[in-house]
Amino acid sequence: MNRRMILYMVGNIVRLEAAIFMLPLIVSLCYHEMNSVFAFSLSIIIAAAAGSALSIIFKPYSRVIYAREGFITVTFAWIILSLLGALPFIISGEIPDFFDAFFETVSGFSTTGASILSDVEVLSHGMLFWRSFTHWLGGMGVLVLIMAILPSDSGRAIHIMRAEMAGPVVGKIVPKIRETAKILYLIYLVITVIEMAFLMFGGMNLFESSVHALGTAGTGGFGIKNDSIGSYSPYLQWVITVFMILFGINFNLFYLFLLKKFKPVFTNRELWFYFGIMLVAAGIITYSIYPTYNDFGTSARHSCFQVASLVSTTGYSTVDFDLWPDLAKGVLFILMFLGGCAGSTAGGLKLSRVMIMLKAIRKDVRQLLHPRSVSIVKFEGKKLDDSVMNGVTTYFALYILLIALTFLTLSFEPDFNVISNLTASISCCNNVGPGFDKVGPMVGYGAYSGFSKLVLTFAMLFGRLEIYPVLLAFYPKTWTKK
Amino acid sequence: MNRRMILYMVGNIVRLEAAIFMLPLIVSLCYHEMNSVFAFSLSIIIAAAAGSALSIIFKPYSRVIYAREGFITVTFAWIILSLLGALPFIISGEIPDFFDAFFETVSGFSTTGASILSDVEVLSHGMLFWRSFTHWLGGMGVLVLIMAILPSDSGRAIHIMRAEMAGPVVGKIVPKIRETAKILYLIYLVITVIEMAFLMFGGMNLFESSVHALGTAGTGGFGIKNDSIGSYSPYLQWVITVFMILFGINFNLFYLFLLKKFKPVFTNRELWFYFGIMLVAAGIITYSIYPTYNDFGTSARHSCFQVASLVSTTGYSTVDFDLWPDLAKGVLFILMFLGGCAGSTAGGLKLSRVMIMLKAIRKDVRQLLHPRSVSIVKFEGKKLDDSVMNGVTTYFALYILLIALTFLTLSFEPDFNVISNLTASISCCNNVGPGFDKVGPMVGYGAYSGFSKLVLTFAMLFGRLEIYPVLLAFYPKTWTKK
Repeated sequence: MNRRMILYMVGNIVRLEAAIFMLPLIVSLCYHEMNSVFAFSLSIIIAAAAGSALSIIFKPYSRVIYAREGFITVTFAWIILSLLGALPFIISGEIPDFFDAFFETVSGFSTTGASILSDVEVLSHGMLFWRSFTHWLGGMGVLVLIMAILPSDSGRAIHIMRAEMAGPVVGKIVPKIRETAKILYLIYLVITVIEMAFLMFGGMNLFESSVHALGTAGTGGFGIKNDSIGSYSPYLQWVITVFMILFGINFNLFYLFLLKKFKPVFTNRELWFYFGIMLVAAGIITYSIYPTYNDFGTSARHSCFQVASLVSTTGYSTVDFDLWPDLAKGVLFILMFLGGCAGSTAGGLKLSRVMIMLKAIRKDVRQLLHPRSVSIVKFEGKKLDDSVMNGVTTYFALYILLIALTFLTLSFEPDFNVISNLTASISCCNNVGPGFDKVGPMVGYGAYSGFSKLVLTFAMLFGRLEIYPVLLAFYPKTWTKK
Repeated sequence: MNRRMILYMVGNIVRLEAAIFMLPLIVSLCYHEMNSVFAFSLSIIIAAAAGSALSIIFKPYSRVIYAREGFITVTFAWIILSLLGALPFIISGEIPDFFDAFFETVSGFSTTGASILSDVEVLSHGMLFWRSFTHWLGGMGVLVLIMAILPSDSGRAIHIMRAEMAGPVVGKIVPKIRETAKILYLIYLVITVIEMAFLMFGGMNLFESSVHALGTAGTGGFGIKNDSIGSYSPYLQWVITVFMILFGINFNLFYLFLLKKFKPVFTNRELWFYFGIMLVAAGIITYSIYPTYNDFGTSARHSCFQVASLVSTTGYSTVDFDLWPDLAKGVLFILMFLGGCAGSTAGGLKLSRVMIMLKAIRKDVRQLLHPRSVSIVKFEGKKLDDSVMNGVTTYFALYILLIALTFLTLSFEPDFNVISNLTASISCCNNVGPGFDKVGPMVGYGAYSGFSKLVLTFAMLFGRLEIYPVLLAFYPKTWTKK
């Protein structure tokens, strides 16, 4: 166990956060929000001091790390990033309570977008920008960003990448990890900027467009209005719909597309499954809500927006879908579980996992018919190993267990009913954001007790890092020598 | 594919049903219910004619069957048993609608206990007895009963037993299948009679005690009053609580107990897990509902009854638990998924599956820490093969898929909300019975449309036969020659 290396890397990440705080500081300066300027300045000093101290004191003797160091580094980096990331909210007094500020920051980094605020419009521009920027950082991964910008620290960075990036299989798109991280972040940045341009074309100013582009890119969902995207024009709602869908796609496909390798993109099964599910869901919901709006265009727009938002686990909304007919709500309920494509910034179970489970089921059905035959299962053109299928079905069991335990703990809240607690658990574990009823899209998580907020905070963290890293970081045997 | 043997066996089962109809016929005669006497008499004639025709026409050339014949026989036997079992309800006019009568009969055989009746007290004694008797037959399995009473038809009867009996592993307790079936049914009968005695001691008459003992034994839940067990004395409620718990235990343990092999009984992990879960759940619920009743004894009684009822998937209730605080409801919601022990008459996922999944998760966590090590997983003192673990986690994925598809279909109902549809799906797939809100314990499934009732009917059938047999029976490749 290379503890020095872990602390050294955490130190580097904290220093990076100090640098990142500069951005909301600039926003605060532009809007002459002196309270926020003070909060961010003080946070920068604290983060820079703490980060530098860690990096200097724990300069590692050896830079070699293994899987276990990867899990621990990522987990503790994310917790410390969030604790420090909550500082500006607390120092400025805009979110004075610790549990609230920690919840809000983890919700940001984990790209959940669940908020404890009942009135988001009173926040300063600096804080609103910081909230959305945490989505952007958390979407692709903070440690992946470090790899992209700093000279390679370790020959084993793949362990970090595996622990931080979501999906059943993390592949390197080019042989070098650092190059992979750079390419991914570059694609990410470019699509974000393109979305900003489209939003500004629709009448948003620089601040609004950047906040919403960052929130969409990370599939987060923090906005600047209490009705989320509801008061923006249909054009802007459609733009966000399209970009939510784009950010739910495997980034490797964008890279292949740029290389003009169109065939693997258009034959990607997960992509078609993703479009297929959204199409069917949007169709059913449009049918269900048509009597509510009495207009096909409006129904289709709201339906597509909400479907894209929930499948990509963004969590923006254009209407209070909690008031929709129960058919529409039933479809949304199922969508909350699925998540986008592996290798995207979306959270949730991920569609490739769903597809692999369906293949595992089909395999077992065939095995029952022909007990002695050996069948080869293929996925995305490659042979699917039994170990991958078993890993996915076991992950699914663990994932349902996580939701069940979160739900059970929330049930101790006196004033929340089953459907609120259940959708809150599902939504936070899948990094979606809104749920139904008391955690509906136009409400918030503010009414939960501090303890329940902490539970949900960890549920979001478990969900974003896909359970195992966090579980291992708190598993005593991980820390023993051999 | 030995189609003649399948039809021959189905014919035998139908003839058995004709014989079984004699029992409710006798009850109807005792109570001078001439309408019911006519209904059962006509049903006997139809069943006897149809069954004899099948058995004579399709007398098999070969009695050899394989797994696929086992799945098909069990599935179609259950469907035909239920179709014929619905005849008395329809002929007598007590449940005139076909979908209603079919739902009620499958609910009986599958030991679900969900009812489309809003007023059960208007039914004749004969029909009430038949309803509860279907629970008893379905609990242990109708085909297992055939094996126990008829001379062995086939050397491969294990395929039938595997398809009809629930749980991840079906073991023969003695080398001969027929002896195993006999022992199981004998234990089943004796405990049922003991429960009847306890109930009669508490003041129930012969009819009431037999109906409730049959309903408890099959872990079904059909009663004779609209408030289920609510109006019976605390003594009777406690008796039923204890017997619901007993019938949720693996029957092999009773056999071992009778053989005075106490050690394997008391070291059975699933048994302790079963008691542990009930104890924790009952504790939380007693704490939750104490303010409602302001009396520890009453709170504990209602809590224990409902916990035993839901874990054993019986579905009786002493109070309208839909009105309980949301903490109690949250716990009940989770219990609906679990089910009793494997090898019992209880439905649901089964606790041994839950335990095996937890072991699979622990194994994968360890594997992440020590990727090259090979760890041996043990369960109930024996080495657990990877194939069993993978089978269980894949089954779990399929089981959640079944619930999700049932829920999605029910969502098309105009007047049911998400929580009603969700708990209806979970409750029917797990053969529990009641859910929350519009399918709460004091309501019923009568308000659903015919189509939704049919969907729930098949959900109950899938749940009782543990999905694969029904799936395979409707899978075209099962029917092809090779």
